[in-house]
Amino acid sequence: MLDIISSTQNPKIKNVLKLQEKSSERRKQHLIVFEGNRELDLALNAGFNIKTLFVCKDVWGDERIEGVSQRDIFYISKDVFDKIAYREGSDGLIIVAEPKYLTLETLALSPNPFLIILEAVEKPGNLGAILRTADASQADAVIVCDPRTDIYNPNAIRSSVGCVFTTQIVASTNEEVLAWLRSKGITSYAAALTATEFYHETDMAKPCAIVMGTEATGLTDHWLSGANKQIKIPMRGKIDSLNVSTSTAILAFEAMRQRGF
Amino acid sequence: MLDIISSTQNPKIKNVLKLQEKSSERRKQHLIVFEGNRELDLALNAGFNIKTLFVCKDVWGDERIEGVSQRDIFYISKDVFDKIAYREGSDGLIIVAEPKYLTLETLALSPNPFLIILEAVEKPGNLGAILRTADASQADAVIVCDPRTDIYNPNAIRSSVGCVFTTQIVASTNEEVLAWLRSKGITSYAAALTATEFYHETDMAKPCAIVMGTEATGLTDHWLSGANKQIKIPMRGKIDSLNVSTSTAILAFEAMRQRGF
Repeated sequence: MLDIISSTQNPKIKNVLKLQEKSSERRKQHLIVFEGNRELDLALNAGFNIKTLFVCKDVWGDERIEGVSQRDIFYISKDVFDKIAYREGSDGLIIVAEPKYLTLETLALSPNPFLIILEAVEKPGNLGAILRTADASQADAVIVCDPRTDIYNPNAIRSSVGCVFTTQIVASTNEEVLAWLRSKGITSYAAALTATEFYHETDMAKPCAIVMGTEATGLTDHWLSGANKQIKIPMRGKIDSLNVSTSTAILAFEAMRQRGF
Repeated sequence: MLDIISSTQNPKIKNVLKLQEKSSERRKQHLIVFEGNRELDLALNAGFNIKTLFVCKDVWGDERIEGVSQRDIFYISKDVFDKIAYREGSDGLIIVAEPKYLTLETLALSPNPFLIILEAVEKPGNLGAILRTADASQADAVIVCDPRTDIYNPNAIRSSVGCVFTTQIVASTNEEVLAWLRSKGITSYAAALTATEFYHETDMAKPCAIVMGTEATGLTDHWLSGANKQIKIPMRGKIDSLNVSTSTAILAFEAMRQRGF
C-alpha cells in the first residue's frame, strides 16, 4: 500500500506553500518550487539537483518517472495537489530543487556571444517570455541588472515553460555588467526611442548585447550614455513602444538572422 | 462648487463596475470601459464615441481635458476612483465609450495588405501585446477567428496601451476568414512546427497574412491544410515554441523589413 500525504498540514506540504509564496524563504532555504514533467526534464538535463518530487497519481497516472531517486518521491492526494498546484492544466508533478545562481565570472560564453541584458524586470511573465526567446535564439545568457531579481519567481518559471533551466541567467548591477561587457569586448546596443539607428541596419553578427529598459520608463542614463550605441525599432503606428518581451524577440531574431541562424 | 460622486452606490458607478466585469453587459449595453489619458486620446482620434468621462481630480489634477463635452464629464472622489480603477499607476480618468465591431466586409485594406490572424485568443494580455505589434508594424488588421472573442476585455485594452483603438480588429469564423483571404488574393502563411520553410526565407512583401495558433495546441487542421503555406521560426534551443505574442512580433517585423518598413 502506497503512503499518500493527504493533509495540507504535513510539514513538507506547508514548506512547499512557504517556498511558493516567499522569495526570502527560497533564498534562505536555497530551494525553489516548480511544476510539470516538461520542466522536470529540462531541469534534470541542465543538471539541477532535485530534492523532492511530489506526485499526485490521480492526475499524473502510473507512468514511471525517470531521473529522480525513489527515496525523494512522495505521493500526495488530489486535495493536497489542488492546494499546492498553482497552474491550470497541471500534470500532477510538483518539484522542489536547488537553484543555481550564476555570476558574470562563471558564465560560459560562446566564441561569438549574443547576450540579452535587462536593466530591470517589471513582470515575471515578461521575464518568462524573454527566457523562451533566449532559449530559441540561442542567446548565451540573459543578464538582469538588479541583484534583487527573483529569477525563480513561480510566475517567471511557469511562463518560461522551463527555459529558466535551459538558459544561463545572471543577476548583477548596472555598473558591473557594463564594466564586464567592456572587458570582454562585447558591443552593447541600448534599445531606445531616442536612437537614430535602426536595429536592422545595425551589425549584430559580431559579439554583442542588446540592452532593454523597463516598459514604463525605458533605460536609465547609465545605459543610454554608457552603451556603445543606441538602436531602435521603427514604429509606424500611433504608439511609441512595444511590449518589452516582443521588442526583445524582434532584436534577438534579427541578430540570429544576421548570424545565419 | 463641483458636484463630486462620492458613493460607490451611485447608479453610474455601479454600472461601470458591471461593464468592467461582464462581457455580456458590454455587449448588451453596447458600451465599453477603459482608463487613461493616452487611451482616451487614441480613442478620440480614432473617432470612438465617448459617452462618459469620470475624472478623479485628486489623481488627475486640474488640467483641462479636450475633446469631451462638459456635459459628459463627471467628477468622482478618490474612494470611488480607487474602487473602479483596475490599473496600477492610473492617471485619474475612466471612460465609458461605444465599441466598434468591424466585419470582414467593412475592413479598409491598403493596396498591399499585411494581416495578422489569430485562430483564437487564450490570454487577453497576449492579444494586447499583439495589437501593439500590429500598430507599430502597420498591419492592416488583426483578425480573430472566433466570433465570441471579447476584444474589449479590460485586460486586453490595458495591455494594448490603446492599440485596441488604433488597429482594425475583426472577430469572425475560421471558414469565413479563409474564404475571404482567398477572394482577396491574400496569401496565408500558417505558423507551424511542422513547416519546412523558414519565415525569413518566405516572401512576405506581397499581400499576405500570418496565421497564429494558440499557445497550448497550435493551429487546427483548418489552417494547417487550408493556408497557402506553413512557415516556422528556427528554434535552436531546448524548447519547441515561443510565446504567441513574441512569435507574432518576429513574423510581423520580418514582413516590415522585407517591405522596407
